Amino acid sequence: MPDSVPAFDTVIRNGRVATAADVFSCDIGIRDGRIAALGEGLAGRQGIDAAGKWVLPGGIDSHVHISQPSGEGIMMADDFASATRSAALGGNTTVLPFCMQESGASLRSAVGAYHAKAEGECYVDVSFHLIITDPSESVLGQELPALVADGYPSFKVFMTYEGLALADRQILEVMEVARQTRALVMVHAENYDIIRFLTDRLERGGRTAPRFHAASRPVIAEREATSRAISLAELSDVPLMVVHVSNREAMEEIRRAQAKGLKILGETCPQYLVLTASDLDGLNMEGAKYVCSPPPRDTASQEACWEGLQQGVFATFSSDHCPFRYDDPQGKLTPKGRTSFRWVPNGIPGVGARLPILFSEGVVKGRIDINRFVAVTATNHAKIYGLYPKKGTIAVGADADIAIWDPALTRTLTHAAIQDGSDYTPYEGMEITGWPVLTMVRGRVVAQDGVLTGAKGFGQFVPRAL
Amino acid sequence: MPDSVPAFDTVIRNGRVATAADVFSCDIGIRDGRIAALGEGLAGRQGIDAAGKWVLPGGIDSHVHISQPSGEGIMMADDFASATRSAALGGNTTVLPFCMQESGASLRSAVGAYHAKAEGECYVDVSFHLIITDPSESVLGQELPALVADGYPSFKVFMTYEGLALADRQILEVMEVARQTRALVMVHAENYDIIRFLTDRLERGGRTAPRFHAASRPVIAEREATSRAISLAELSDVPLMVVHVSNREAMEEIRRAQAKGLKILGETCPQYLVLTASDLDGLNMEGAKYVCSPPPRDTASQEACWEGLQQGVFATFSSDHCPFRYDDPQGKLTPKGRTSFRWVPNGIPGVGARLPILFSEGVVKGRIDINRFVAVTATNHAKIYGLYPKKGTIAVGADADIAIWDPALTRTLTHAAIQDGSDYTPYEGMEITGWPVLTMVRGRVVAQDGVLTGAKGFGQFVPRAL
Amino acid sequence: MPDSVPAFDTVIRNGRVATAADVFSCDIGIRDGRIAALGEGLAGRQGIDAAGKWVLPGGIDSHVHISQPSGEGIMMADDFASATRSAALGGNTTVLPFCMQESGASLRSAVGAYHAKAEGECYVDVSFHLIITDPSESVLGQELPALVADGYPSFKVFMTYEGLALADRQILEVMEVARQTRALVMVHAENYDIIRFLTDRLERGGRTAPRFHAASRPVIAEREATSRAISLAELSDVPLMVVHVSNREAMEEIRRAQAKGLKILGETCPQYLVLTASDLDGLNMEGAKYVCSPPPRDTASQEACWEGLQQGVFATFSSDHCPFRYDDPQGKLTPKGRTSFRWVPNGIPGVGARLPILFSEGVVKGRIDINRFVAVTATNHAKIYGLYPKKGTIAVGADADIAIWDPALTRTLTHAAIQDGSDYTPYEGMEITGWPVLTMVRGRVVAQDGVLTGAKGFGQFVPRAL
Amino acid sequence: MPDSVPAFDTVIRNGRVATAADVFSCDIGIRDGRIAALGEGLAGRQGIDAAGKWVLPGGIDSHVHISQPSGEGIMMADDFASATRSAALGGNTTVLPFCMQESGASLRSAVGAYHAKAEGECYVDVSFHLIITDPSESVLGQELPALVADGYPSFKVFMTYEGLALADRQILEVMEVARQTRALVMVHAENYDIIRFLTDRLERGGRTAPRFHAASRPVIAEREATSRAISLAELSDVPLMVVHVSNREAMEEIRRAQAKGLKILGETCPQYLVLTASDLDGLNMEGAKYVCSPPPRDTASQEACWEGLQQGVFATFSSDHCPFRYDDPQGKLTPKGRTSFRWVPNGIPGVGARLPILFSEGVVKGRIDINRFVAVTATNHAKIYGLYPKKGTIAVGADADIAIWDPALTRTLTHAAIQDGSDYTPYEGMEITGWPVLTMVRGRVVAQDGVLTGAKGFGQFVPRAL
Repeated sequence: MPDSVPAFDTVIRNGRVATAADVFSCDIGIRDGRIAALGEGLAGRQGIDAAGKWVLPGGIDSHVHISQPSGEGIMMADDFASATRSAALGGNTTVLPFCMQESGASLRSAVGAYHAKAEGECYVDVSFHLIITDPSESVLGQELPALVADGYPSFKVFMTYEGLALADRQILEVMEVARQTRALVMVHAENYDIIRFLTDRLERGGRTAPRFHAASRPVIAEREATSRAISLAELSDVPLMVVHVSNREAMEEIRRAQAKGLKILGETCPQYLVLTASDLDGLNMEGAKYVCSPPPRDTASQEACWEGLQQGVFATFSSDHCPFRYDDPQGKLTPKGRTSFRWVPNGIPGVGARLPILFSEGVVKGRIDINRFVAVTATNHAKIYGLYPKKGTIAVGADADIAIWDPALTRTLTHAAIQDGSDYTPYEGMEITGWPVLTMVRGRVVAQDGVLTGAKGFGQFVPRAL
Repeated sequence: MPDSVPAFDTVIRNGRVATAADVFSCDIGIRDGRIAALGEGLAGRQGIDAAGKWVLPGGIDSHVHISQPSGEGIMMADDFASATRSAALGGNTTVLPFCMQESGASLRSAVGAYHAKAEGECYVDVSFHLIITDPSESVLGQELPALVADGYPSFKVFMTYEGLALADRQILEVMEVARQTRALVMVHAENYDIIRFLTDRLERGGRTAPRFHAASRPVIAEREATSRAISLAELSDVPLMVVHVSNREAMEEIRRAQAKGLKILGETCPQYLVLTASDLDGLNMEGAKYVCSPPPRDTASQEACWEGLQQGVFATFSSDHCPFRYDDPQGKLTPKGRTSFRWVPNGIPGVGARLPILFSEGVVKGRIDINRFVAVTATNHAKIYGLYPKKGTIAVGADADIAIWDPALTRTLTHAAIQDGSDYTPYEGMEITGWPVLTMVRGRVVAQDGVLTGAKGFGQFVPRAL
Repeated sequence: MPDSVPAFDTVIRNGRVATAADVFSCDIGIRDGRIAALGEGLAGRQGIDAAGKWVLPGGIDSHVHISQPSGEGIMMADDFASATRSAALGGNTTVLPFCMQESGASLRSAVGAYHAKAEGECYVDVSFHLIITDPSESVLGQELPALVADGYPSFKVFMTYEGLALADRQILEVMEVARQTRALVMVHAENYDIIRFLTDRLERGGRTAPRFHAASRPVIAEREATSRAISLAELSDVPLMVVHVSNREAMEEIRRAQAKGLKILGETCPQYLVLTASDLDGLNMEGAKYVCSPPPRDTASQEACWEGLQQGVFATFSSDHCPFRYDDPQGKLTPKGRTSFRWVPNGIPGVGARLPILFSEGVVKGRIDINRFVAVTATNHAKIYGLYPKKGTIAVGADADIAIWDPALTRTLTHAAIQDGSDYTPYEGMEITGWPVLTMVRGRVVAQDGVLTGAKGFGQFVPRAL
Repeated sequence: MPDSVPAFDTVIRNGRVATAADVFSCDIGIRDGRIAALGEGLAGRQGIDAAGKWVLPGGIDSHVHISQPSGEGIMMADDFASATRSAALGGNTTVLPFCMQESGASLRSAVGAYHAKAEGECYVDVSFHLIITDPSESVLGQELPALVADGYPSFKVFMTYEGLALADRQILEVMEVARQTRALVMVHAENYDIIRFLTDRLERGGRTAPRFHAASRPVIAEREATSRAISLAELSDVPLMVVHVSNREAMEEIRRAQAKGLKILGETCPQYLVLTASDLDGLNMEGAKYVCSPPPRDTASQEACWEGLQQGVFATFSSDHCPFRYDDPQGKLTPKGRTSFRWVPNGIPGVGARLPILFSEGVVKGRIDINRFVAVTATNHAKIYGLYPKKGTIAVGADADIAIWDPALTRTLTHAAIQDGSDYTPYEGMEITGWPVLTMVRGRVVAQDGVLTGAKGFGQFVPRAL
């Protein structure tokens, strides 16, 4: 098209574009925040040279926790500004945090509260899952159907944690609503009774250091709950997303269900690919930096999680970003947490580190190809959670949510680069090859070369439908 | 781009485009036989309106037999002109027939012979696999490496058939060459000894009608050979394509291997989705129309093959087109074939019917989505066999090999519509919803609304590399 | 030994003797209630001719409920006299009923109460399992260890039923005691939440007839709980007996655990071999006669249960005898039960019918051999529950607990022959080939040719140790 | 019976008797070579005190090679005298060697030849399997049916070895005869083509030392052939005994078949429990002492073989005794064998060491119980191969074939104690707890305290029927 002058706002030139299925080289013409053309020799008012780079759909992180309370008066270390800042720097264009129902309160009020927290704060686009902690009759009968219709068609339920865990029967009630409204249930699958039993025993034995967190939540607890959740979904005839799978046994339960023809989806996270339980062994309370649930396991489990990504058992790769500051008595180091791992806030940050870790360990090391990278970091999230085709791919008509990656750029991962609200990254010191050098949300560059360039509040709420 | 006048030769407008991962609506600008742009409001010298239609990558049929001899002086019923004519009418833009080595002769001479047959005759593009029947030292040591380098990087081996079957050791020798040259081995997996044993027994018992063909090649024979071929590939550390899988047991062997991390690929064909062994029950010799190997099984096997397509166990869906005329003493009805199923030429036509059957039974009936349709009929063929990204997708830079499908068009499948060199179709009378209404090869419309519009000889040979 | 005159009390002559491993022909010399010799030509004060008969170890039924309350003021239809009478007539020499803890009461008091009920009433020998409904600190810490030491080394826990169901954590506490005392945990595995959820839904839909009992407890509920119980046992590192398995899916969970090397044992019952859910379809309340949990399933499930017996997945075959009178407003036909299946007392009689059913359907029909019959009806019970070698086999030194079977005797099964405290048998009308014609407990004939010959109170309590 | 004086020839007193199912303490009265009574206080003309000892059925070794040629003019190192001498000293009372058909010769002549070799030479009883190397029409149609009727109802076929390997089709022909005559097929399952392919490659690479024997016959070769043999048996609807299973993958194929309900039996041997491939690493030709097929694998494979014994996947434990002298140019050290492992005679001695190894490593170390020991070393052999109930158990009427074991006797295993015709034992130096201190064949003590006491020629031929 050299002889024409199209009215593109921006053209990304000469890049190598990958979708979940394809790889091709072309220019991308962007107009009004959307991808208007893919072609050769496109012209625009503004040009971005992507020669030698990968041009990928911006990352979607469908499992992040932002501004949630975590019991005992503790609050997560990220507000929407800092979390989406880190997301943008890490190559993401959309994140999906949770609106958590307070016990006894309505879901609608939770939705209102989280919208209020997000309003005017976000650097990238945002959409919300719901966390159901109290499936009362009004929640099941009125609120959920209305909220699904309003753009919140995914609910997370917990099988563990005080105040969050639902009984099987409650999960069945939620699944029944999901079936009727065609919403998707997400499940945190760990057997709460096993964890309480072991935690009590460990504490009675004086084994209270952070590293005993891993011992208190063994693989069996996760496998059992995964199997049970699948049974409940099979009975209810609904799809199910099992989040943050950490090991072979749970992965094989999901694979077994898929082979039976059940619509069971799986997710894994960076902590299960590159951390192990021995990371919790740090002296004093250093191990607290790695306390999350399920806990990282061992290298064989890492292999199993890679296998799950390679073979399609896992559809998505998310961060389960859940940040607490380490040097903070309101964070990882509460006085109570020092008395027992039981009270150490559960969760680690990851929204900014997720994509570079998978690119470097996965694509660069040849474990997965670039199409699979796009699928598990963007496209599948969009399709599963109802953002597609607005988000999640590079195609005409889609939002111009794009990350440009330099596959040869090598840098050590540090918390300084991550810029989230925490004060550490559990991945500090990893050598990473392949970094996002530009992140564009709806046609606007929000991060470039490690510098935030976006405007607070540019990120929008995106309602969803399945 | 409304205010510009790009120099597109042709623009396909307003269609709904699907790739193996995405669905989007846009125009496609074609220049010099390649896709030059995807965009909105493109203009070109020639326009094709695709409103309300699917615009898909042209079908690639990676398993067709053309102009091969079939023993006893019998020749297949299709030459390259008639086979590629039928392919074009059926929505295909590339076919991959075989160059079959004559016993004692060189592979290079086989390649020369099939090129001579194809030269100037094809309506769609063509690339060749090799069939190795005599893995002599010179074939293994000299010819194969040279032919891989020349663009023939896929070899088929047979575990059954007089004059074709290779011993395990020979297969290992071929796999060793494949490993060194990074070529792909394809295998026809049936246990020849079982088939001979049962055939003799059936004949001794006077059970010689065509329907006993199915009894002579039971599921166990296929499962066993599939398992054995996988073992040989595992030992050799090479990928393997198991072609024309017909039943659950063989499918599960492939799934088991994939779950172990082996690179085992599977293919199934329309005859295993919509025919059963009872189709061979016709009076007199009517059953001969359905004699192919492996034979169609039963409805449970059909379900298993659908499952294999849905769950990704099978990467490709091909026709195994292998046509003989029914009313022909040189075809299905040879005097010898009338004495026993053993002598009935093996194979049925399908290159023209493959895509409508899968579209109607798969996409329209909701068994697979449009992305999976594209993957198993085009993209995966191109990637696996080395045609990608020139062929197999709709992306800037790719050949403009495109099929436009009317998803609502309903017609009865007849041989008259198929127009191959045979005189029947085993799928006669099927009600099909969804037909290709236009097939374009490298920018040129070769078939439209059931009428051939291409020129003989326009189809080109496409060398490949893996 | 014809030339000697041994002082045998009784000699069983000319029978064909089977143990769990062997078959041989010989006389059995009995002295002081024990087997003193196996030989040829033995002489004794009393002779029993067993020519043409099988001489087998007396049946041990390790799963019977006697004189238990069943909620709402309902009491089971058998006291110890009637239950052990029926047992004797059915070829049994030992039964293992339960001492059920009343909620809030001590286990020791339950043991006392059931001993009091049994004292002086039994026709065959008796030993007791414990049912733990309230694993309080004193039960776990004091009572259980003491009771194990006193001869009660097997505990049953329920995962369903109001007032009986234990939470996972409570099961873990019980298992921990089992581990320390080397006792065996038995589990009734059905997911209580699933059952309650479905029961409520069925009732809301007006589906309250007895046949909806089966719909309220689907296979998934049993499979899920089986899998969960196995996980708890694996975590606790204890063996586990999963009682009354009714279907393939639960059976395969047990097989999978066994193949992993876990010590998981399985039991099935006659109702899962010869009844189906359609037996609950009777008009009015006829279906109530078949209400038991898990419910009978379908013929494919029957096949799976046979497979479990044949292949060793199941170690024992018991009756789960749990009798209620049908024509009794205090039994199956309570006013409340008429309003919903939920209130129909759960359980069916079987202690008298168990062995003839398995002999006829299993041995006579060639599904299992005589050794396997002996193993699953006697020897394995004795070994697993700590009665061996005093009970469970025919060997020198063992108690003379013997059943003589006429393998050719054919009779229709009727409740009249069963003579338990119920007023029907769910197996009424079955044609049975092979009946016990003589039952001997510790050398004394307690039943012969369908007539009770034993004395009430002859049956003793047998303490056990594992 | 103290007050009677039965005419027992011999009484074994005070021992602890075990069968495949039971354990009991009693005296054993023997008359006319048979067990006439089991009882307390038996009296006889001769007494043997077994206090503190196990009294077990004499071992049956159903897999031994005696006096077979091994190609190239080599003969095995044992004739019937030396082999049965070693067997007697090792606690065995019956062995089952092979009559190997010479190519082109009749089976009947082979039977005659081996009978001639055995006649008057044996210390324990003997029965013969047939090895079919040339399944000609007359062998299949006339000889085999006649030989089955004459007491030779088990045939071994080889899937590997020059001159022995049968094609799949030949195996199907043999299985068809087995089906019709109800005989049992035994199979040596290794893929010959894989072995030849790898052997050639190893030799071309100069890797000719004995240790490369293991590399030439990898697990895949055994797994593949096992799977194929099972498929052939499934098709033929016959039971199949897979002999000398060496690893998990082949074991799991057998387990999978058993779970499907197929009658597939498995055998393992001491070399797969206590040797590994590293035993073949000896300097010079020391590794030749361990050259057998399949080769010993690794410790994980040993675990799998133990699992197969524990869980019932394997029915029998045999020696695959196949002795060659090490320091003999006609034995392991032929000039040709020094040039390549390919020519090292295949096989190791084991008939004398089999039982002590399993007793010490299995029973004493708690891996299997005494009943399982009896089952896999005696009873199952007798039942599977048609010697039962004459052989294989301790029961009235059975031959008095008995081994008395001192479970506490600890000695180092040496070739001096084994006394076979070889000049070494591959198990030299193993510390063994538990030895047979007396072996009795048909009432006669043939070995006692490591000294042969039997008479050459006392051992008889035992015809068999299934």
